[in-house]
Amino acid sequence: MGKDTTIRELYRETETYAGQEVTLRGWVRTNRSSNKFGFIELNDGSFFKSVQVVYEQDMINNFDAIAKAPIAAALMVRGTLVLTPEAKQPFELKAAEVVIEAGSEADYPLQKKRHSLEFLREIAHLRPRSNTFSAVFRVRSLVAYAIHQFFQDQHFVYVHTPIVTGSDAEGAGEMFHITTLDLENLPKGEDGNIDYSQDFFGKETSLTVSGQLEAETFAMAFRNVYTFGPTFRAENSNTARHASEFWMIEPEVAFADLADNMDLAEDMIKYIINYVLEHAPEEMEFFNSFVDKGLIDRLNNIVSNDFVRVTYTEAVDLLLKSGKEFQYPVQWGIDLQTEHERYITEEIFKKPVFVTDYPKDIKAFYMRINDDGKTVAACDLLVPGVGEIIGGSQREERYDVLCARMKEMNLDEADYWWYMDLRKYGGVKHAGYGLGFERIIMYVTGMSNIRDVLPFPRTPKTAEF
Amino acid sequence: MGKDTTIRELYRETETYAGQEVTLRGWVRTNRSSNKFGFIELNDGSFFKSVQVVYEQDMINNFDAIAKAPIAAALMVRGTLVLTPEAKQPFELKAAEVVIEAGSEADYPLQKKRHSLEFLREIAHLRPRSNTFSAVFRVRSLVAYAIHQFFQDQHFVYVHTPIVTGSDAEGAGEMFHITTLDLENLPKGEDGNIDYSQDFFGKETSLTVSGQLEAETFAMAFRNVYTFGPTFRAENSNTARHASEFWMIEPEVAFADLADNMDLAEDMIKYIINYVLEHAPEEMEFFNSFVDKGLIDRLNNIVSNDFVRVTYTEAVDLLLKSGKEFQYPVQWGIDLQTEHERYITEEIFKKPVFVTDYPKDIKAFYMRINDDGKTVAACDLLVPGVGEIIGGSQREERYDVLCARMKEMNLDEADYWWYMDLRKYGGVKHAGYGLGFERIIMYVTGMSNIRDVLPFPRTPKTAEF
Repeated sequence: MGKDTTIRELYRETETYAGQEVTLRGWVRTNRSSNKFGFIELNDGSFFKSVQVVYEQDMINNFDAIAKAPIAAALMVRGTLVLTPEAKQPFELKAAEVVIEAGSEADYPLQKKRHSLEFLREIAHLRPRSNTFSAVFRVRSLVAYAIHQFFQDQHFVYVHTPIVTGSDAEGAGEMFHITTLDLENLPKGEDGNIDYSQDFFGKETSLTVSGQLEAETFAMAFRNVYTFGPTFRAENSNTARHASEFWMIEPEVAFADLADNMDLAEDMIKYIINYVLEHAPEEMEFFNSFVDKGLIDRLNNIVSNDFVRVTYTEAVDLLLKSGKEFQYPVQWGIDLQTEHERYITEEIFKKPVFVTDYPKDIKAFYMRINDDGKTVAACDLLVPGVGEIIGGSQREERYDVLCARMKEMNLDEADYWWYMDLRKYGGVKHAGYGLGFERIIMYVTGMSNIRDVLPFPRTPKTAEF
Repeated sequence: MGKDTTIRELYRETETYAGQEVTLRGWVRTNRSSNKFGFIELNDGSFFKSVQVVYEQDMINNFDAIAKAPIAAALMVRGTLVLTPEAKQPFELKAAEVVIEAGSEADYPLQKKRHSLEFLREIAHLRPRSNTFSAVFRVRSLVAYAIHQFFQDQHFVYVHTPIVTGSDAEGAGEMFHITTLDLENLPKGEDGNIDYSQDFFGKETSLTVSGQLEAETFAMAFRNVYTFGPTFRAENSNTARHASEFWMIEPEVAFADLADNMDLAEDMIKYIINYVLEHAPEEMEFFNSFVDKGLIDRLNNIVSNDFVRVTYTEAVDLLLKSGKEFQYPVQWGIDLQTEHERYITEEIFKKPVFVTDYPKDIKAFYMRINDDGKTVAACDLLVPGVGEIIGGSQREERYDVLCARMKEMNLDEADYWWYMDLRKYGGVKHAGYGLGFERIIMYVTGMSNIRDVLPFPRTPKTAEF
């Protein structure tokens, strides 16, 4: 705030500060000294990189104290920025004054050595101070902003769909139940069942699995809308790709068909990649060197090529023709498994692939039935290294067709009265998709476990911090 | 998408389109005709205002069908944009072709008449199509983006703090319980109590009331951070200012004190107001005319003046000296009620006021104790018409002082081990605040009920849609 200079400014506007006196505040990453002078790697959180502070016995009056400043201690350093064109780092700060603003205890868990990602998850409150997580969470922030910018620049309306819901939007997926009832003393009705009319909302409620249906109501008013909020799945699956609480982006566009939908998704993915390459070059370089070699080449390749578009039927043919033996055998009608999805995107096409027009029996009730009567206008985007990252569709806008489909799937129209209303009053064609936010973060950083791109991950049996 | 022109473009780039043929898609707001020609007010959701479409018997081949197009029907209109400098609206579209893309049934609830806000809440899935809610929810979207822009332009890191929590962050407030246990058949332990180890997260969990404590962990890594996400209060209070689910913004800044905190909050409020005045002039004009006369003058006044800063002790003195009779009598030590807050901001100062340094007994455990030992470094921002809109504080960074305070308040240090760690390892001074997102929307739109600024409000006994 105010008077301090940030390390970001020193790196981004080096010429302005060269030879000038500046005041920094930050935390010690490393500290080593002889009896005459010492070096502190100081990081202030404003930037991925640190600044080397040089302090000398002859220059400051508390040399011995500073030489003992431990890792994680917080310092104020006033000094002169000296360019060092011969050295590895572009400049260093020659200290004229160093003040310890806060000490740190010797048992600080993040010492200067390589820690396992598993260990770092146990200290999620400290891991953003490590290089890896400093990079991950800054990129996460930038990608979130890139997504808002992408949609807002096109005048999409951002809508906060509700988290507490009385209905299961996708007619599938285990949900978390919400209640304020005293579980040790549940109120019962005359029939002996729990009396939910006494619960906070007067009925059974859950955490949302998708804001899509509500977003559709807004698309019918604003034409172009998007959601960006947390969603929840109470699935007991402990994989590297699933979390119980995650964030999702769900654009919904009126007067759009499946091709428009894919155009939007492709533009968005490319926008995100361009944004992080431009705004986080240091972090991306770090991922490329230490997390996922070849990452930057792969991302550059993606922004400069068209995504493939292939129907489900064609994809199944290609899988069958490949001769590859899969754990789950391939035949028309099956839901594609991760192994199939990854083979399609990584082996067959080697780039992002939209698979379209899936069998209706494996897809949700709201997807538009194609003229063949067997498939729906769905599109899933598969990307190398991650698999499915986007699921979308054109929505069924025909009232009668939607009713018939809901009957087929044993859904009660009355539960969806407001969703049906959209088909009665100016219900035009429309389409949308859901992007798993953590999936795109994994994709652009190369991190392979969803627990490492969520600040405080929630998974089965885990809700720490 | 793609080929269509939007009504936003016609208004914002009128000269480009004047005399040109354009294709629009949108919904009928009104339709009136004689036997020779007719007028349709067409809105496509891209813009607050509609376009007048003029269609003539001699120009289109389906005049009779179009003349019968009901409110809410969706049309494609191809025609020429003709400037009408003499008329109320700046231009009209002379139709060469009109196609009905979707009809609408006669019982459409949003007919051309003034509906009560209460009635419109019952059709929350359709109300964004009305002028009022079209304006409210576009402004809501723009304010959300303005907030991201404000913080991102200053390189704050956006952090998604968890929604599912194992702890009550503020040590107060009723919380919603989350579970996947079968409530009709709860597992019991040997002691006869519910066995939460069998619940999804292996323990009791709730919906978050604040992301502050987790945000503090990130501030100690990134210096400047903010949250923006949903929060929950299971309070059974049916007021115009409270919802059970609402969104909150919580910046947290390391190396900052209370004055820095207020500077940031004041800058943010002014940034938001300037942003909506610039980006939603039509909507703001509408609110100023039909919702809250004098709104724009008031907002302009706010951006061009400093906010007042007054201590709680001074504010109590001013209230006592005012001679005003309050429902809740004023004395040093009480928590200020809405009537007091509004009197301070509306009557005494007539502008936004920060009240600082509240008695510690009415504030949370994490606020920094002042040197007087009686008050804490808190700051609440009160604004005319709404009351409290921001609550913030400098945080207690001194380990021993924090421990003593927690003991005083019967909080168990062990439950907050990670929060305490922040004080052990480089725990510098820091400060932050929470902005109720709906409160700022109410403030900039003049809407007086929180239910009318939330897309699908959740309040006691209400979780529809």
